[in-house]
Amino acid sequence: MFMREIELKGHIIDSLILPKVFDKILEMGGDYKVLEFEIGKRKTDPSYAKILVIGKDEKHVDEILSELKDLGAEIPEIEEVELQPAEKDMVLPEGFYSTTNHKTFIRFREKWIEVENQKMDGAIVVYPDKMRAEVKTIRNIKKGDLVVVGHKGVRVIPPEKPRESGGLFEFMKSEASSEKPKETIIRRIAKEMYEIREKYRKTGKGGIVVVGGPAIIHTGAGWALAKLIRMGYVQALFAGNALATHDIESVLYGTSLGVDLKTGKSVPGGHSHHLRAINVIMRAGSIKDAVEQGILNRGVMYECIKNNVPYVLAGSIRDDGPLPDVITDVVKAQEKMRELLKGKDMVLMLSTMLHSIATGNLLPSWVKTICVDINPAVVTKLMDRGTSQALGIVTDIGVFLPMLVEELEKLEKEKEDKDRGDNER
Amino acid sequence: MFMREIELKGHIIDSLILPKVFDKILEMGGDYKVLEFEIGKRKTDPSYAKILVIGKDEKHVDEILSELKDLGAEIPEIEEVELQPAEKDMVLPEGFYSTTNHKTFIRFREKWIEVENQKMDGAIVVYPDKMRAEVKTIRNIKKGDLVVVGHKGVRVIPPEKPRESGGLFEFMKSEASSEKPKETIIRRIAKEMYEIREKYRKTGKGGIVVVGGPAIIHTGAGWALAKLIRMGYVQALFAGNALATHDIESVLYGTSLGVDLKTGKSVPGGHSHHLRAINVIMRAGSIKDAVEQGILNRGVMYECIKNNVPYVLAGSIRDDGPLPDVITDVVKAQEKMRELLKGKDMVLMLSTMLHSIATGNLLPSWVKTICVDINPAVVTKLMDRGTSQALGIVTDIGVFLPMLVEELEKLEKEKEDKDRGDNER
Amino acid sequence: MFMREIELKGHIIDSLILPKVFDKILEMGGDYKVLEFEIGKRKTDPSYAKILVIGKDEKHVDEILSELKDLGAEIPEIEEVELQPAEKDMVLPEGFYSTTNHKTFIRFREKWIEVENQKMDGAIVVYPDKMRAEVKTIRNIKKGDLVVVGHKGVRVIPPEKPRESGGLFEFMKSEASSEKPKETIIRRIAKEMYEIREKYRKTGKGGIVVVGGPAIIHTGAGWALAKLIRMGYVQALFAGNALATHDIESVLYGTSLGVDLKTGKSVPGGHSHHLRAINVIMRAGSIKDAVEQGILNRGVMYECIKNNVPYVLAGSIRDDGPLPDVITDVVKAQEKMRELLKGKDMVLMLSTMLHSIATGNLLPSWVKTICVDINPAVVTKLMDRGTSQALGIVTDIGVFLPMLVEELEKLEKEKEDKDRGDNER
Amino acid sequence: MFMREIELKGHIIDSLILPKVFDKILEMGGDYKVLEFEIGKRKTDPSYAKILVIGKDEKHVDEILSELKDLGAEIPEIEEVELQPAEKDMVLPEGFYSTTNHKTFIRFREKWIEVENQKMDGAIVVYPDKMRAEVKTIRNIKKGDLVVVGHKGVRVIPPEKPRESGGLFEFMKSEASSEKPKETIIRRIAKEMYEIREKYRKTGKGGIVVVGGPAIIHTGAGWALAKLIRMGYVQALFAGNALATHDIESVLYGTSLGVDLKTGKSVPGGHSHHLRAINVIMRAGSIKDAVEQGILNRGVMYECIKNNVPYVLAGSIRDDGPLPDVITDVVKAQEKMRELLKGKDMVLMLSTMLHSIATGNLLPSWVKTICVDINPAVVTKLMDRGTSQALGIVTDIGVFLPMLVEELEKLEKEKEDKDRGDNER
Repeated sequence: MFMREIELKGHIIDSLILPKVFDKILEMGGDYKVLEFEIGKRKTDPSYAKILVIGKDEKHVDEILSELKDLGAEIPEIEEVELQPAEKDMVLPEGFYSTTNHKTFIRFREKWIEVENQKMDGAIVVYPDKMRAEVKTIRNIKKGDLVVVGHKGVRVIPPEKPRESGGLFEFMKSEASSEKPKETIIRRIAKEMYEIREKYRKTGKGGIVVVGGPAIIHTGAGWALAKLIRMGYVQALFAGNALATHDIESVLYGTSLGVDLKTGKSVPGGHSHHLRAINVIMRAGSIKDAVEQGILNRGVMYECIKNNVPYVLAGSIRDDGPLPDVITDVVKAQEKMRELLKGKDMVLMLSTMLHSIATGNLLPSWVKTICVDINPAVVTKLMDRGTSQALGIVTDIGVFLPMLVEELEKLEKEKEDKDRGDNER
Repeated sequence: MFMREIELKGHIIDSLILPKVFDKILEMGGDYKVLEFEIGKRKTDPSYAKILVIGKDEKHVDEILSELKDLGAEIPEIEEVELQPAEKDMVLPEGFYSTTNHKTFIRFREKWIEVENQKMDGAIVVYPDKMRAEVKTIRNIKKGDLVVVGHKGVRVIPPEKPRESGGLFEFMKSEASSEKPKETIIRRIAKEMYEIREKYRKTGKGGIVVVGGPAIIHTGAGWALAKLIRMGYVQALFAGNALATHDIESVLYGTSLGVDLKTGKSVPGGHSHHLRAINVIMRAGSIKDAVEQGILNRGVMYECIKNNVPYVLAGSIRDDGPLPDVITDVVKAQEKMRELLKGKDMVLMLSTMLHSIATGNLLPSWVKTICVDINPAVVTKLMDRGTSQALGIVTDIGVFLPMLVEELEKLEKEKEDKDRGDNER
Repeated sequence: MFMREIELKGHIIDSLILPKVFDKILEMGGDYKVLEFEIGKRKTDPSYAKILVIGKDEKHVDEILSELKDLGAEIPEIEEVELQPAEKDMVLPEGFYSTTNHKTFIRFREKWIEVENQKMDGAIVVYPDKMRAEVKTIRNIKKGDLVVVGHKGVRVIPPEKPRESGGLFEFMKSEASSEKPKETIIRRIAKEMYEIREKYRKTGKGGIVVVGGPAIIHTGAGWALAKLIRMGYVQALFAGNALATHDIESVLYGTSLGVDLKTGKSVPGGHSHHLRAINVIMRAGSIKDAVEQGILNRGVMYECIKNNVPYVLAGSIRDDGPLPDVITDVVKAQEKMRELLKGKDMVLMLSTMLHSIATGNLLPSWVKTICVDINPAVVTKLMDRGTSQALGIVTDIGVFLPMLVEELEKLEKEKEDKDRGDNER
Repeated sequence: MFMREIELKGHIIDSLILPKVFDKILEMGGDYKVLEFEIGKRKTDPSYAKILVIGKDEKHVDEILSELKDLGAEIPEIEEVELQPAEKDMVLPEGFYSTTNHKTFIRFREKWIEVENQKMDGAIVVYPDKMRAEVKTIRNIKKGDLVVVGHKGVRVIPPEKPRESGGLFEFMKSEASSEKPKETIIRRIAKEMYEIREKYRKTGKGGIVVVGGPAIIHTGAGWALAKLIRMGYVQALFAGNALATHDIESVLYGTSLGVDLKTGKSVPGGHSHHLRAINVIMRAGSIKDAVEQGILNRGVMYECIKNNVPYVLAGSIRDDGPLPDVITDVVKAQEKMRELLKGKDMVLMLSTMLHSIATGNLLPSWVKTICVDINPAVVTKLMDRGTSQALGIVTDIGVFLPMLVEELEKLEKEKEDKDRGDNER
């Protein structure tokens, strides 16, 4: 028998941290005794618990404590992180600490350092000179990098559940279902997006990343995404070859995969349109070149170029072509995506499982993440793969995007009217 | 070896009747020789084929011919139908002819009689005195009814594929998929509905049956269905206890299954609202009584009462309550549905698998059938069960219905403007 | 401002009762102060909390307390239930208490009485002479029935989460997903079923109800369900006309909806087989008559008759026929289902959304409920509709059932071998 | 008005070529007259039709003829293909001919040359010196390549529908549905695979490519795929980082994404297992190195190495790591896949939408393609994207693969028994 004390502080009951701690201890075959417990008397007060964790031997208790740390427990005897150098490029030391997507601190030289570039499934590399630490993916590990091993000196802060009710995210906390009042939901998302845009316009900080799939174009909602970009609601676009090619095809030929978007009918010879669209861009040199040469004069990609919205078109094994702008090496594409995600406030995932999961892998858990798909399984899969903060809306992107644009326009008009009224007074 | 000649006439190539005939013969282990063949020289000309069907023995050839008749082949030696009386109520004679949902004629006393009340999976009962014949379900068979047995003297006319292109139904002939241009599709449905309503207003004939599920209310689109009724686009409503109860709940308490349709949040005590709604109607006596007592003053069911739109609320094993208006005996509910379907031009199936399949079972194959559901499997299942004329639209009913109403309003305004212009000239 | 004290006892942290209580108070616009709190020191100790609930006025606090009672909170000043007589048949008094599916007690004449026939969405009727109370559905309410109104004197006990880990139900607590190790899951279900059967054999108590859909027959797994019945694993069968008809069709003609189950091909004339199957039973009189006349000599329905397993074939609006054994009035079918569910240990829901939700509506929350479907949405819907205890397995019934039978046979053989070994020693 | 004659030969009625030709002409606004028509008198005789195509002007008729050629029509005045050199690398000449996945011939220097490396959405490059032609993807086009433009001199042969009935592919021709007799289907696939393997063993030609997703491992069926490889039923494996990593994780740690495959429960610290598995392979150098160093000693990837089965692990934007064996550049991965697909007889696509569509893009239409997925939408999408030859089986891979192995073992045993019997006689 071996024991050790741990402490828990904060909204540990509301955020379900305490029940999870008890669960985990029992699940791992350990036991516990509550030594002290003080519950927050009022809703703003934090609670406090001191718990004795009991295990078979020191190793067993250490294993339990490792898990509890990931849940946010604090071990009172503060210990330094343990570091080990990487033996060669792209190889981590045995027993490396594998990151979560939650906010993480490490105890190094008696200071708590916040880890930068938080994402799940990476390793923490420490730079002693600069007193900094960051998450690196295994491919970016260089020989000699000082990597955190074990759980000692690592503190994880899972997002606490907000006590105040009423926000969009509180509202949609339940499971993804197609049977929700849709006009209400769209109105709330519009409001949230509007506020982020206003903040972005004032401060140049934050903003929205849109991750989009080709169904946006197939369902005839391409014009709505293009408009969102023009209206200033998109600070970066992540997509694949398909979205960009279908968008360009729709501009050049009026079709998406050969289907006329006006009549909904297949056009003779239409099956070759997407390859012809790619060839047009190949000849021009790039999407930007095509815009500058006047060949491409509207649509999603056009608006990106015109409004200086950076984009990542990530290659996929199923690509035709692909377009010259596509980053065919997926590791390089991930790097660029990670770069663009830094500091963003919201990610809007629209009808693409592949790119949504990819983006989720790169996101810290405190970014607002909305996933819209007609297939409820996409949301479930995204959350199963760790992006548990994602809120799912099960609907048809072809009607959702036009309605979202309409709501944003109404909202802007209201604000304008109000401002005008304010000025006149 | 045994042989027999058959003839095929009409658009047998375009409508794929000829290839199907060849297929069926080979599939059943028979063989064939083409004796004569004349193809329609121009698109409006019918084609003609005389084919020798070869089988192992007379019985084998007869079996093949039975199948070919259901495909529309004509056997030159015209034979009378064979009739046998039902031995007791609800029991058909051995070897009864089981109907398809296609237009059917029988040869009786040297005349071709069109069979009335066509639906799939029934039996044909002949009334010699009146020289009439109709499809009856097994439950409606009375002792002594003269029932068609075997395939002799039965002629089936499957719907020929229209040569003219461009209609809504030609447009959507391909499989159900969520990836279609949605605004285009909605516009076309609106146009078709508008024309049916105009015809109905002039002639009092035809009209539209809406088959609806509770998701209409949950997704906040109840107001749109209510408006469709008010605008005159619904000549009958088929639903279950759930649609009606949630509609009434939403009017009385603003919630659907306890979820506030304005805020999307669960309301305290809301889980009991649907039972309370049922209790309110129970106390009033019926939905109509509740409308007349001023208790129910808007919503889907209210509009049905106010606009004299007949409805069938069919009972289901999963019903709570149910409402006093629900027909709890499903065989009786089917009878009433069959009555209301007579002569209708279009059936709009909205987010309900159970009631859609039920209605499909009662429909002849020449009625325009549109099935809207977020789940593509619903459409597939409907077609697998024989309603092969159904056209599927995979989308979110919560955004589809409001858009449909919007399109119909636009269309009506256009027509009005045009009429006014015509009058002024 | 108005306040009132409440008490919570038991495993209120592990079972998430405490966090839910805090949530609910804040959500409803109230506030709270924790007066006393004692956490169970060891895992077997219950915890205790005394909380002051603060609201705007007495009505507000009463509303909050009503909700907290459904979560399991106890109000220290013990009050009697309030009763009101029903004014007429099928009409409940205003403000009736609407039941959950959790175990419920009422305080009547200073005693706590357990409510019988627990199910969700009913009303509690009290029989003072017998000191008994039961849940009645609205249709069964008779004029003069004494019905509980308001929340006073009602105590709800939600199932506490078991602290011991390892059972099947603990194991599958996470969401329904197709991506789970399937052979492992099937083995565990087999074990659970085996134990229930053994208990049933010894005591004649409990047992398993199977709720089945027609996909069981279409996918060729009918023989496996028939075998389960023969092996003694089914104490009641709930299904619709479809399962029974397809089963009988498969026995009489070797097809299911006209598809040959040996070759998987459509059989000529096969579309009429299900109607012919119904006609055969119509002529015989009933399924039992057909078995006794030697017409039906194997299959699912045959085994039910031979093994005296009661069944409910509940009518549905989409039925063809239906068979004479089908209860076409859904309210009567529900009554019979409720009767058969009494005291059962497990419900196995196999590929039927309609009948699964219907059965869920009638079940108390402490019955083990397993729902097997290839479509994950079925499980989600079942839980959304209140059957939150259901555990979902997303798999193909056509391969699941044969494997389950195989596992049960292995298990029985192991036990036999063990028993034989025990005897020889 | 402008007209031109075309000829059609072969099983143009059974294969629906004639109806499609008529449809297409009318759809494009043209008209036709049938000049001659001779139908095959017996099932083995080809049919013949001479048709006059009528259009508005020469351009219109040319457009129609282009489309008809893709349907298999022959234009009597035989013309040579028109060639144009590519102006620069990766840029095709304006008006290039975009390939289908059907067998294609070109008329060049008065000879019909079969085009090599057939796949959809490529361009045809002609090598006059060698009198050869091949399909090249746009990325592989080199400056100066002689590319076919327009439709002249191109002949497409769509797969004719086989007249003989009974094969697996004829059997499953209908749509993907979960409601099919599963044991029957699995038995037939096993038979087909057995024959391909025997042919491969004798001739070294053809064989089976497996395209697999990670659900194989998650559902606990990894051992079955490993066994298929060992039994000689896999000649190449296409997958992503996920399948390989989870397979290796399951061998090293007994888990898949941290879920214990024996107990189905999450293992403490399990979320890091896949990264640890990648790190183990990183340190070893490659999967092959890990096998040779004895670190990896069973599983799917181990069997590939041991049985010299080539594999392509194609990179994806959502990859973690990825493993050193993953080809992170998707264009390079496609090249290698195309190489390995050459001459294969069957492709088995198991629970992966991304890799299935990617493989479909590279496949000629005459390769037998089976797609197994629990989600019917995967099959629909695959066919929508052009792989119309794919046959879909909607089932759970976790039970399908073990059953397939069982059936193959039975089959092998039967053959052995038969051979032994033959030898003894």
